[in-house]
Amino acid sequence: MEKYVWQHMRRDEIAEMRDHGAVVIVPVGSIEQHGAHLPVDVDIFMAQTVALAAAQALAPDVPVLVAPPVWTGVSPHHMHFTGTLTLSVDTFSQVLRDIVTCMWRHGFRHILLLNGHGGNDQTMKAATLQLGAEGIEVAATTYWDLAAAELAELVEGERKKVGHACEIETSMMLYLRQELVDMSTAVKDLGIPPTRLPTGGAVYFWPVFDPGTTGVAGDPTLATAEKGKAFLDAITKNLAEFIRTFHKTHIP
Amino acid sequence: MEKYVWQHMRRDEIAEMRDHGAVVIVPVGSIEQHGAHLPVDVDIFMAQTVALAAAQALAPDVPVLVAPPVWTGVSPHHMHFTGTLTLSVDTFSQVLRDIVTCMWRHGFRHILLLNGHGGNDQTMKAATLQLGAEGIEVAATTYWDLAAAELAELVEGERKKVGHACEIETSMMLYLRQELVDMSTAVKDLGIPPTRLPTGGAVYFWPVFDPGTTGVAGDPTLATAEKGKAFLDAITKNLAEFIRTFHKTHIP
Amino acid sequence: MEKYVWQHMRRDEIAEMRDHGAVVIVPVGSIEQHGAHLPVDVDIFMAQTVALAAAQALAPDVPVLVAPPVWTGVSPHHMHFTGTLTLSVDTFSQVLRDIVTCMWRHGFRHILLLNGHGGNDQTMKAATLQLGAEGIEVAATTYWDLAAAELAELVEGERKKVGHACEIETSMMLYLRQELVDMSTAVKDLGIPPTRLPTGGAVYFWPVFDPGTTGVAGDPTLATAEKGKAFLDAITKNLAEFIRTFHKTHIP
Amino acid sequence: MEKYVWQHMRRDEIAEMRDHGAVVIVPVGSIEQHGAHLPVDVDIFMAQTVALAAAQALAPDVPVLVAPPVWTGVSPHHMHFTGTLTLSVDTFSQVLRDIVTCMWRHGFRHILLLNGHGGNDQTMKAATLQLGAEGIEVAATTYWDLAAAELAELVEGERKKVGHACEIETSMMLYLRQELVDMSTAVKDLGIPPTRLPTGGAVYFWPVFDPGTTGVAGDPTLATAEKGKAFLDAITKNLAEFIRTFHKTHIP
Amino acid sequence: MEKYVWQHMRRDEIAEMRDHGAVVIVPVGSIEQHGAHLPVDVDIFMAQTVALAAAQALAPDVPVLVAPPVWTGVSPHHMHFTGTLTLSVDTFSQVLRDIVTCMWRHGFRHILLLNGHGGNDQTMKAATLQLGAEGIEVAATTYWDLAAAELAELVEGERKKVGHACEIETSMMLYLRQELVDMSTAVKDLGIPPTRLPTGGAVYFWPVFDPGTTGVAGDPTLATAEKGKAFLDAITKNLAEFIRTFHKTHIP
Amino acid sequence: MEKYVWQHMRRDEIAEMRDHGAVVIVPVGSIEQHGAHLPVDVDIFMAQTVALAAAQALAPDVPVLVAPPVWTGVSPHHMHFTGTLTLSVDTFSQVLRDIVTCMWRHGFRHILLLNGHGGNDQTMKAATLQLGAEGIEVAATTYWDLAAAELAELVEGERKKVGHACEIETSMMLYLRQELVDMSTAVKDLGIPPTRLPTGGAVYFWPVFDPGTTGVAGDPTLATAEKGKAFLDAITKNLAEFIRTFHKTHIP
Repeated sequence: MEKYVWQHMRRDEIAEMRDHGAVVIVPVGSIEQHGAHLPVDVDIFMAQTVALAAAQALAPDVPVLVAPPVWTGVSPHHMHFTGTLTLSVDTFSQVLRDIVTCMWRHGFRHILLLNGHGGNDQTMKAATLQLGAEGIEVAATTYWDLAAAELAELVEGERKKVGHACEIETSMMLYLRQELVDMSTAVKDLGIPPTRLPTGGAVYFWPVFDPGTTGVAGDPTLATAEKGKAFLDAITKNLAEFIRTFHKTHIP
Repeated sequence: MEKYVWQHMRRDEIAEMRDHGAVVIVPVGSIEQHGAHLPVDVDIFMAQTVALAAAQALAPDVPVLVAPPVWTGVSPHHMHFTGTLTLSVDTFSQVLRDIVTCMWRHGFRHILLLNGHGGNDQTMKAATLQLGAEGIEVAATTYWDLAAAELAELVEGERKKVGHACEIETSMMLYLRQELVDMSTAVKDLGIPPTRLPTGGAVYFWPVFDPGTTGVAGDPTLATAEKGKAFLDAITKNLAEFIRTFHKTHIP
Repeated sequence: MEKYVWQHMRRDEIAEMRDHGAVVIVPVGSIEQHGAHLPVDVDIFMAQTVALAAAQALAPDVPVLVAPPVWTGVSPHHMHFTGTLTLSVDTFSQVLRDIVTCMWRHGFRHILLLNGHGGNDQTMKAATLQLGAEGIEVAATTYWDLAAAELAELVEGERKKVGHACEIETSMMLYLRQELVDMSTAVKDLGIPPTRLPTGGAVYFWPVFDPGTTGVAGDPTLATAEKGKAFLDAITKNLAEFIRTFHKTHIP
Repeated sequence: MEKYVWQHMRRDEIAEMRDHGAVVIVPVGSIEQHGAHLPVDVDIFMAQTVALAAAQALAPDVPVLVAPPVWTGVSPHHMHFTGTLTLSVDTFSQVLRDIVTCMWRHGFRHILLLNGHGGNDQTMKAATLQLGAEGIEVAATTYWDLAAAELAELVEGERKKVGHACEIETSMMLYLRQELVDMSTAVKDLGIPPTRLPTGGAVYFWPVFDPGTTGVAGDPTLATAEKGKAFLDAITKNLAEFIRTFHKTHIP
Repeated sequence: MEKYVWQHMRRDEIAEMRDHGAVVIVPVGSIEQHGAHLPVDVDIFMAQTVALAAAQALAPDVPVLVAPPVWTGVSPHHMHFTGTLTLSVDTFSQVLRDIVTCMWRHGFRHILLLNGHGGNDQTMKAATLQLGAEGIEVAATTYWDLAAAELAELVEGERKKVGHACEIETSMMLYLRQELVDMSTAVKDLGIPPTRLPTGGAVYFWPVFDPGTTGVAGDPTLATAEKGKAFLDAITKNLAEFIRTFHKTHIP
Repeated sequence: MEKYVWQHMRRDEIAEMRDHGAVVIVPVGSIEQHGAHLPVDVDIFMAQTVALAAAQALAPDVPVLVAPPVWTGVSPHHMHFTGTLTLSVDTFSQVLRDIVTCMWRHGFRHILLLNGHGGNDQTMKAATLQLGAEGIEVAATTYWDLAAAELAELVEGERKKVGHACEIETSMMLYLRQELVDMSTAVKDLGIPPTRLPTGGAVYFWPVFDPGTTGVAGDPTLATAEKGKAFLDAITKNLAEFIRTFHKTHIP
């Protein structure tokens, strides 16, 4: 039985984990269009999946709890496609702050927001700054940033990072949930980079996925389940490593 | 494959359901202490379970979509026990409004907020009033209100309604997820009624579940899996019936 | 001289009542269209009237203060008719919280929000939950819920509960303020139930009173001043009884 | 019968006034300590009283409606004394904006916020600026500013303006509601000016009425009912004059 | 070197000023159209200029710090002209509260908000009331109110007070920054008074500067650099005098 | 005369720039402690300086406007040191949104938020996402990200990026405003990295600059004015290049 899944545990079991100084991983993601070929929950599913994989990898050495998945992210730039459910930036920020504050009040001191949606990244991190202003310290990351080098090496196509419904995401979905993927509708699209502007990512400029576009940023046609496993292993390994360090870090 | 689970579908599949005038059920619940014997996700798990059961019962006659579960509810009165994760009333209201607004913008016109946590009920309904002020009409209910008469008849103990971690909830959990229930710690407690005041429920007065209390309102020791199935069947039947009617109701 | 009307008292008189452990009743209502035959202040006038009647009935046994009437309620669904003045749900909630917080800071511990407008009910109760999260405990009710059985028995028409500008409200207005009622324009309308959906009230779905409708829910043509007195007496008696109990309840 | 009192009218009566281009006066005030000798509702009572007096003086020439009294003002600086009920500055601003917006939506174009509490003045006027940003134009004043010269001439004591629980307010209360005034506890106090700083009012600096103080700013011992009538007449005359001009002003 | 300019100082220099009980002047203004002949920063430039002049005049007797200029004011009524940058009333209020709260937390007790834009005046003062509710006392003024008598005497034209892009403001700009002024486009316009209504300023009613208008309120054609110096000297002298008194006032 | 400084221009001059499709650079920074040796305005001063330098470099080829400096940033983690003035994350976000919205309404389509404070980066970018949801597209960057490679090469010490009051910032200050720098108090401190955790920056975890620390992150003792010029030139060159591209990019 999974004894690291917050929502499946009883109050005393969670309290016991707190007493053991458990690290809490909060999967954060979104429900949004993911090209024509992927289901809308890729981002939150992946964040939850790597969180659980890391927890499993660390047990029983390092006590870890995986919080219920926060799928209510910010994706206004995907609203032209049906299926996207987005909060405003303000509501999303408040949701994260309310949840983390509860954990802090219960006595947890090692809390990691583990994000799976690019659009959430900035707001999530801004929320942690505000929490800090209230004396609550929390770590935050987007999962692929933990294995940027490894992913870049494993990727076959031109786009070496996670885009949207891309080679990396599609591969992992093929490995984990092939039945929800429709590869016949997967298309390559490098035309919508994470930013429209040629500055190598230094300038932030949100591309809106307009109705006429593919809703894809990357090349999902190169995806295979095999690569998916490799991507997943790299991410899990690095996440587990970080958790191990985080667990040993003193948070006042 | 489940083709009524929003988050497992692709954008075009969801759009197709919209074109067929699908009803969307949004499970709403909470993560909060549920006595010593139940896991913390009872309320959202039950809301999601009955939503899925109704969707299944109605397929393929009535097109139904079950949205991702909104587990971020309001439970400040349970914060004395570890494991509770509560939003403020304001944040929770905004979460519901943001989600429903997205569905409305995508063209859905039959949206039902299906709640499984007593503490959410008032805020959820107030949110629908505000949505109405913006021209968005949405239905809302707490699942046990749909089968109040049937439940009262099936209950064995003194408390004929859902309390908290009570005979009804515990029975359904025994039927559905026995492995998460620890009946050895289940205790009867009729001392914390839904209101401290003897007015038959006419006056609303929140009981705070203080540290020294059991965190239970009802008699879980009477629970059986068999009764759990009966409760579940009654609720599912009535919910399905309502959805059938709702689907035929014209929403401008 | 009325020594239970908060706004007519001097600061030391109010402090003295606080020292005697007085119960504070806060009348809450709205200004909104009430059919063609009733003035727009029915809801707040009735809440204030029953509050004062109960205070009078209990004097000098039980110390009671009646706060100034909070007529700023939520009625967006009545905005199609001139005269309606509505707050947003958020503003209304904040008004109640600010007022109750002041009373609590002044040392009052028995505060009852006594509502006279159906549309306020949910938001008012949600506000008390949020106040509870801040350690402030407050009771809340809608006045007709205190005498549901008695009213149902006294009503002549099909609709046994308070609707809108209905037999009950119109009767009480005829009894109390006949000069403001124009019975020549009173019409029966059972077509707009409190919910459009046939689930016996289990599902909440706000009816918007559209321009072409009567703005009535019930049968005011059956109203008489005599019945009005009977309705009023039943409500006052039950409210007074509740206050007596509330006064004796320990609030920490 | 008073046909200029918004809350006592039926929806069609109000609509008729709108069709006649009626001016709406919204009395705005507060519930707050007013020295030991005056009831807590002086400010809202006075605003409402002069509004009604002006409406009466202008009838039937100029159509005027007096809105329900907005007694929920801002008085945090009076919270040290029991009886004060204050909103936050933000809530108060929102209340005014919501109410005025409803009137504007109903088609009224001549709306005057008539304030009777110094502490409200700035927030009220700031609210009108924000309404202007949304295309809603509304006038706002504090009633004594309309007759500053006349009041200064009529006052006997050193303080020539309205302070708090002062000669002017106490006189008008003696004239209008003697039974609520306890002159035996009235004390002169010029020690708490509207600002602590000797700049003739040019610099705004809120004096907090601390527990040890009198809660008075002015000399109520000089008050007489006779002077009260004179103050009232001067204010009413000037207000009526303004309304007459306002009514003729074109608001787009 | 200017040792009273907050932003040019190092953290320990500011702390030292705090230890000496320094008065902090916070210049508050706006960026908004100022007729065709003046740059858009007149209001914040003037507030900052008089603050610096007073600080210089008082040194080394009275320790004064001039905070960075808060140019983000409220000017929605000027948005019809290009160049205006306005916050909402709510945002502006929050900006002031956040800044003053920081200063208070650092130990400063003599803080003066010195405003140079009429449209800010009400919101700024309302913000200080809210700060007072949180125990933070702060003074606030609009600079020309400190020298109303002197200015009225020095003005040549009919309009004796500061209007907008008027004789006073234009004169001071000619004296201080002639190179930014284009007198060839300066026009007299008395048609847009601070209020449209003939009540001598007693009633507040925002004039919106519509596209077809001059955007001027007053007579800039009478402006001279010489008069500008006289205006400036009068204001600086009175401000310095106030600061001297403020510095000696005990703030608990 | 500088004809690219927004605040020094007249309304028609700004409108003319808009008609020429000018790019607007909005300098964004903060007022916060910068070690013992630097003044508190380094971040906003630097953002403004590089904006002006780029504007100058591009004139008259590319029309550029530099907006007034937004010095009201978020720095709660620096509040332990005197001089820091921080907004909350929410207020800061709203300030940016209000300002950009005004520019958009005036017709500007090429707006760049140019930030100089690490703590602002996330909130600024989250604000642009929300603006996008409202149809307003805006670019955002932190100035050193535009020249990361060049800076890393020029830096002498171990820390190759901008930290806080570090080699890069101190060098540029020595070059530009030596009179405000006190090198005698400059200390090297590599102990407070941008994140406490050894993950190469992949995980975000705000270090709070506690009272006992130096408030420095980097090695300012290596700073020279000469290096400052080199840093500045690299940044300016890259920023100008970006502006040139941005100006040619079509924004719908």
